[in-house]
Amino acid sequence: MTETRTDHAAYTDDELDTDLRWWAAANYLTVAQIYLQDNVLLREPLTAEHIKPRLLGHWGTSPGLSAIYTVLNRVIRETDSDWLYVTGPGHGGPALVANVYLEGTYTEIYPHVSRDARGVLKLCRQFSTPGGIPSHVSVQTPGSIHEGGELGYALVHAAGAAFDNPDLTVVCVVGDGEAETGPLSGSWKIPAFLNASRDGAVLPILHLNGAKIAGPTVLGRSSDSDIADYLGGQGWTPMFVEGDDPKAVFRDLKSAIDQSHRIIRDLQAQARDDGPSAGTRWPAIVLRTPKGWTGPHEVDGELIEGTHWAHQVPLSGVRENPGHLEILETWLRSYRPEEIFDAAGAVVDEIAGLAPEGDRRMGATPYANGGRLLTPLKLPPIARYALEVDKPGATIHETTRVLGEYMRDIYSENSSSDDDGGAFRLFCPDETASNRLAAVFETTDRCWQLPTNEHDDNLSQSGRVMEVLSEHLCQGWLEGYLLTGRHGLFATYEAFAMVSASMVIQHTKWLQHAATLDWREPVASLNILLTSTCWRNDHNGFSHQGPGLIDAVLPLAPDVVRIWLPPDSNSLLSIAEHCFRSRNHVNLLVVDKQPHLQYLSLDEANDQAAAGISIWPWAGTEGDNDDDPDIVLAGAGDVPTQEILAAAQMLREWVPYLRVRVVNVMDLMSLLPQADHPHGMSEDDFADLFTRDGHVVFAFHGYPRAVHQLLHGQPDADRFHVRGFSEQGTTTTPFDMVVLNKMSRYHLVLEALRRSRRVPERSEELVEFCHRQLARHHDHVREHFEDLPEIRDWTWS
Amino acid sequence: MTETRTDHAAYTDDELDTDLRWWAAANYLTVAQIYLQDNVLLREPLTAEHIKPRLLGHWGTSPGLSAIYTVLNRVIRETDSDWLYVTGPGHGGPALVANVYLEGTYTEIYPHVSRDARGVLKLCRQFSTPGGIPSHVSVQTPGSIHEGGELGYALVHAAGAAFDNPDLTVVCVVGDGEAETGPLSGSWKIPAFLNASRDGAVLPILHLNGAKIAGPTVLGRSSDSDIADYLGGQGWTPMFVEGDDPKAVFRDLKSAIDQSHRIIRDLQAQARDDGPSAGTRWPAIVLRTPKGWTGPHEVDGELIEGTHWAHQVPLSGVRENPGHLEILETWLRSYRPEEIFDAAGAVVDEIAGLAPEGDRRMGATPYANGGRLLTPLKLPPIARYALEVDKPGATIHETTRVLGEYMRDIYSENSSSDDDGGAFRLFCPDETASNRLAAVFETTDRCWQLPTNEHDDNLSQSGRVMEVLSEHLCQGWLEGYLLTGRHGLFATYEAFAMVSASMVIQHTKWLQHAATLDWREPVASLNILLTSTCWRNDHNGFSHQGPGLIDAVLPLAPDVVRIWLPPDSNSLLSIAEHCFRSRNHVNLLVVDKQPHLQYLSLDEANDQAAAGISIWPWAGTEGDNDDDPDIVLAGAGDVPTQEILAAAQMLREWVPYLRVRVVNVMDLMSLLPQADHPHGMSEDDFADLFTRDGHVVFAFHGYPRAVHQLLHGQPDADRFHVRGFSEQGTTTTPFDMVVLNKMSRYHLVLEALRRSRRVPERSEELVEFCHRQLARHHDHVREHFEDLPEIRDWTWS
Repeated sequence: MTETRTDHAAYTDDELDTDLRWWAAANYLTVAQIYLQDNVLLREPLTAEHIKPRLLGHWGTSPGLSAIYTVLNRVIRETDSDWLYVTGPGHGGPALVANVYLEGTYTEIYPHVSRDARGVLKLCRQFSTPGGIPSHVSVQTPGSIHEGGELGYALVHAAGAAFDNPDLTVVCVVGDGEAETGPLSGSWKIPAFLNASRDGAVLPILHLNGAKIAGPTVLGRSSDSDIADYLGGQGWTPMFVEGDDPKAVFRDLKSAIDQSHRIIRDLQAQARDDGPSAGTRWPAIVLRTPKGWTGPHEVDGELIEGTHWAHQVPLSGVRENPGHLEILETWLRSYRPEEIFDAAGAVVDEIAGLAPEGDRRMGATPYANGGRLLTPLKLPPIARYALEVDKPGATIHETTRVLGEYMRDIYSENSSSDDDGGAFRLFCPDETASNRLAAVFETTDRCWQLPTNEHDDNLSQSGRVMEVLSEHLCQGWLEGYLLTGRHGLFATYEAFAMVSASMVIQHTKWLQHAATLDWREPVASLNILLTSTCWRNDHNGFSHQGPGLIDAVLPLAPDVVRIWLPPDSNSLLSIAEHCFRSRNHVNLLVVDKQPHLQYLSLDEANDQAAAGISIWPWAGTEGDNDDDPDIVLAGAGDVPTQEILAAAQMLREWVPYLRVRVVNVMDLMSLLPQADHPHGMSEDDFADLFTRDGHVVFAFHGYPRAVHQLLHGQPDADRFHVRGFSEQGTTTTPFDMVVLNKMSRYHLVLEALRRSRRVPERSEELVEFCHRQLARHHDHVREHFEDLPEIRDWTWS
Repeated sequence: MTETRTDHAAYTDDELDTDLRWWAAANYLTVAQIYLQDNVLLREPLTAEHIKPRLLGHWGTSPGLSAIYTVLNRVIRETDSDWLYVTGPGHGGPALVANVYLEGTYTEIYPHVSRDARGVLKLCRQFSTPGGIPSHVSVQTPGSIHEGGELGYALVHAAGAAFDNPDLTVVCVVGDGEAETGPLSGSWKIPAFLNASRDGAVLPILHLNGAKIAGPTVLGRSSDSDIADYLGGQGWTPMFVEGDDPKAVFRDLKSAIDQSHRIIRDLQAQARDDGPSAGTRWPAIVLRTPKGWTGPHEVDGELIEGTHWAHQVPLSGVRENPGHLEILETWLRSYRPEEIFDAAGAVVDEIAGLAPEGDRRMGATPYANGGRLLTPLKLPPIARYALEVDKPGATIHETTRVLGEYMRDIYSENSSSDDDGGAFRLFCPDETASNRLAAVFETTDRCWQLPTNEHDDNLSQSGRVMEVLSEHLCQGWLEGYLLTGRHGLFATYEAFAMVSASMVIQHTKWLQHAATLDWREPVASLNILLTSTCWRNDHNGFSHQGPGLIDAVLPLAPDVVRIWLPPDSNSLLSIAEHCFRSRNHVNLLVVDKQPHLQYLSLDEANDQAAAGISIWPWAGTEGDNDDDPDIVLAGAGDVPTQEILAAAQMLREWVPYLRVRVVNVMDLMSLLPQADHPHGMSEDDFADLFTRDGHVVFAFHGYPRAVHQLLHGQPDADRFHVRGFSEQGTTTTPFDMVVLNKMSRYHLVLEALRRSRRVPERSEELVEFCHRQLARHHDHVREHFEDLPEIRDWTWS
């Protein structure tokens, strides 16, 4: 770790004055972005034509965000240290853009927004206008790893950034609106998981200006004492800074940040010398400043500053209302633009010179552009974990177990010691062992910074398995970890992955837009393992049976999303390796943890994972060159593949003259037309697998219509007959689950015979057999409850 | 409000002894459910055959849940008051089932689980076995409004139940695992929203046994002092009860509940006499008891009780391991089954008699079967709010505004006074006004129990608009409110509805299974208004553009889910009225809040909403009897309808010989085949609208492939060409949004001409015109950024 100076000093009067000039410049540029489309340096009297035709943006939170930015700049220069700024009140976009423009980063990244009059004009015109930049802090904003649209994830992103980044301090501004959300409320528990020795620090600044769009906020109206208790109870030691006098607030804020930083460095130094201690309490800051601070205090006799009326645009109808126009001009001139810009419109040196140097600037920090820091994972050869599979379907294994063994060695190969250099973490609600990934505990532990006792197992301060019973925290921590240049996996019960589905969507949007920005280097993919799947939550029942994340992800950016359905262990290994190497993707891996049949050797698995979709010749009746099957059976996912293979076997045995082809789909996106996804198939390739007009009986892991939506656009999609999870579930046997959802081998055989091109001999007997088997099963179920037999012949696995 | 006795008394020794007998009986039945399939009364020595072949269920939390239930039974009898029990640690299913069996409710509802030896056998055999009941508290559990599968929503459901139920006290047990989730962490802020005068009370019992599946929990390892601060800072006054000696814990727990109840009643009495006061602090209880309390303390030399090893089944391999079998028998006999059951296997009177009477039993309370308490909403005639629409497409209106006016009067007609009798609430993250629903503030306010100031508007303790910046809280409060027999609407930004998508899914599952239970009376539907939609978040940009909830809801139970896309105000009114009258559904209403063209008179809207899907003859070229269009144009949603109509108009004007039909879809589920949804269409009806084989150009509000998935199974679905939101978004104009997503009128015309049966005269000119228009637009966009024009001719609306 770099030695960091912590010789903070209280503001001198001069320093304070120059910092207030930076702040005025940031506020000026914020207001200008919201209002002005011309005369942006205010060299002439303001007229209606200078005002944008539609006024958009959020003033309320902006001056507070800029005040924090200003003070941090000084702290960074004083201490020559790395800070990352996470903006929870994301609507304060214009403030962050103003600050990174002032520090020069904006122009370095976007040269057309130059440091002159034309650049300021562009800066203003682009803001929240068509083709321009969003009003939120977004992927376009230099220095950001956090989109400010959907609220709730500021602190989880901040924590994810701090893990394994010992030199970094992440300032996380939490707005009092966002603080009402569930995910944010849940994410204050960082002290239980942040290790002062190997991790960086998170310094939350709870910025209370008291109001959200249209009313007060819970924390905004809570007393200091209640807030101190609330944060204190969660391991934070808050300092309060409050006021509306800029000089006083700046002095107090500087002092609070200095003090926090000193405490952080002391805690870290102690932990790094003597090992971390349990129950570390971290500093936090509560900053109360007026909403719309320094903006119009009253308009038309109504108080604006400090109320929710300052949330967005505090002055409306400026083009039409000369009185409002005058207020706006007075407001803008209160920042003394003539002292901000030189004759060419460049920010004067006295202000621009306040920015830290180079990559220390928060808009330029490589931590916010994690691809710059990324090193590829050291991946052990997957052959080490591969199962011996000599013959398809002859052995049984808990499929996910090999992934645990693989990750065990990924842990050991990617951290030089327990306390240093980690670049890989597994995130999972308390289910690592349940999901058969417990092999990771041979090389690491669950991460835990609270007290431990002798009965705990695999629990330590140096552990890097992040278990917290919150999908939001797991997902968000991983996002923050990835966006700052590291690697990881989020493993969760399939049904509960929907808890954080909206975060997956927002992260996908981030990656989609990031890929359009040259300056954003590729980051490691977001890998999500969905296990404990719907077909094998037989004992947990209906609430645990839901494959809906597939449907939520399918429509997202085709350049980003990938959905993988490995049917067995070796294919899971092959796909996992691919996912760990991939960049800028969101990979869903869907596979169950229970004992399942194994089909493919590692070589076969590698080939087929690369192909994405393959004919399994040994499972059908065809010879290699037979391109005219009577029926195609296709499976995607472990249980569907098992049922498809059983159906194919029955057809081969009972009606051997029927030509059956079996296709396995591992890469769901490969079903899409070529134009719609990079993995999509041409019509010819598609026809090679599925013929051009023959019927296809398809067993699918998730909701059947998900497949139909993918197939549209391929030749004659009507001929596909998909069975899958049809929202029929309860506490029952695996076999009953496939029966309830009409995806059992018997249903598949019946469908195949109904759809087959030819009606072969003996098909009536087979039909009868299938009906008899299903009837027997139904009798069995009925009897079980009416006659109360001993529980004996219910096969659970 | 009923007068309630609060003359609690400390336990006498006799009372304590008998209550401990109930508790022993509940624990016995819990263990028996998990382990036994025979000899369930333990009348013979236990042998391997008596043990279930697969051991499932969660012992850890169960004894604590039963202890609370036992004490509450006595409190209820002492005070003759109504209590509802919300079980956060839902895996404690067997404990709740045991208690409601002991109190008699279970047998009244499920007579086959009789109060005799056969009934006990059935009780045990059904638990967590195929065809039986889930291991969680679920919809099948009498007394429950809360499914214990997906964790996080116990407190929001409890609060929803307490709103406007002044006589009810909701005990909400929060497990320390669940307490780690985001939604639960966010839901402690009840004191800011619960009105002591008109609402009931929520008494949270934070039940800390220290562990989740495989490790400790954050609150479980936090000090009492930290927990007191954490809860205290959020408006609760916690009392701590801790121990492992049953007698001491029961005495302390009884005393804590008594004291809490007294405080609650005092607060309520004072508020009801003098009006509620701001910042009321409510009692809460923190209960620390060992995980797996009274279970095996050690097994094979390993400590079990009090550790995470007691979470599920603390004794494994009981059939194979005689030592474990012996421990199990000793454990079961420690509850003295011979004193629990009489000769016939009925629970002895001394125990059974401890249950409260009739509907006071927590398993029998009508509050947990809200349909029993439901009275239909008094709905004013929607004609009162209808817009005059003489001519389609001639007027513009902010579509959702009429819904605000409608709800304004629903508020006034459904509460007799400010403080009493409310049965309707609107839930919305701080967006009621933003969503153009502010008319409700003419009859009610935002609900707020913290301090107010002179600048607040529409904010009061008696308000019934629930604004909190948390989709989880809004959604969960409404669910609790509905399941206890009231009515409401959740209005939210479309994109952020995904935040609580998993809750919508779980609620749908609840309604789906509830409908199969005769004893569960129908409840009012869950109505969700999605507004600020993707097409008109032009200024908020990409993070606010996501219609994914449609995709998440589509695959769910067809008997429950409905998706409505009213194209204008009058159709919104008609559909809203239908939704408010409907029962047991989940209704998504998707409509934007911005100014939009209005098309239908109220009569037309009523007819078309009832039909779900209709031909708009005035928009096409056909006469009424013309059943052979060259092309069908279909629209679903406001913006798509506008573009479809513009396209149709262009076609009518440029190529009048082309026969164009326009179809409008308000009820998305009507596209499904008849067999797949109650609103689905037969092939003939479908062909009447869309022809049998003609091409259809379809503009859709959401992701295009959502429509393709619905259409599969209808005749020749390949001929549908759907345009919709294709995840192309940014800060731009509404028109650019439809261009980016290839759904503009020009794209639709081009597609129509490409697909039309006939190529009419002048079509080349029209093609050229469309290309020219699109090219001009692209130039415009490029120029805007390269040449920096004044922002003038960008049409925002």
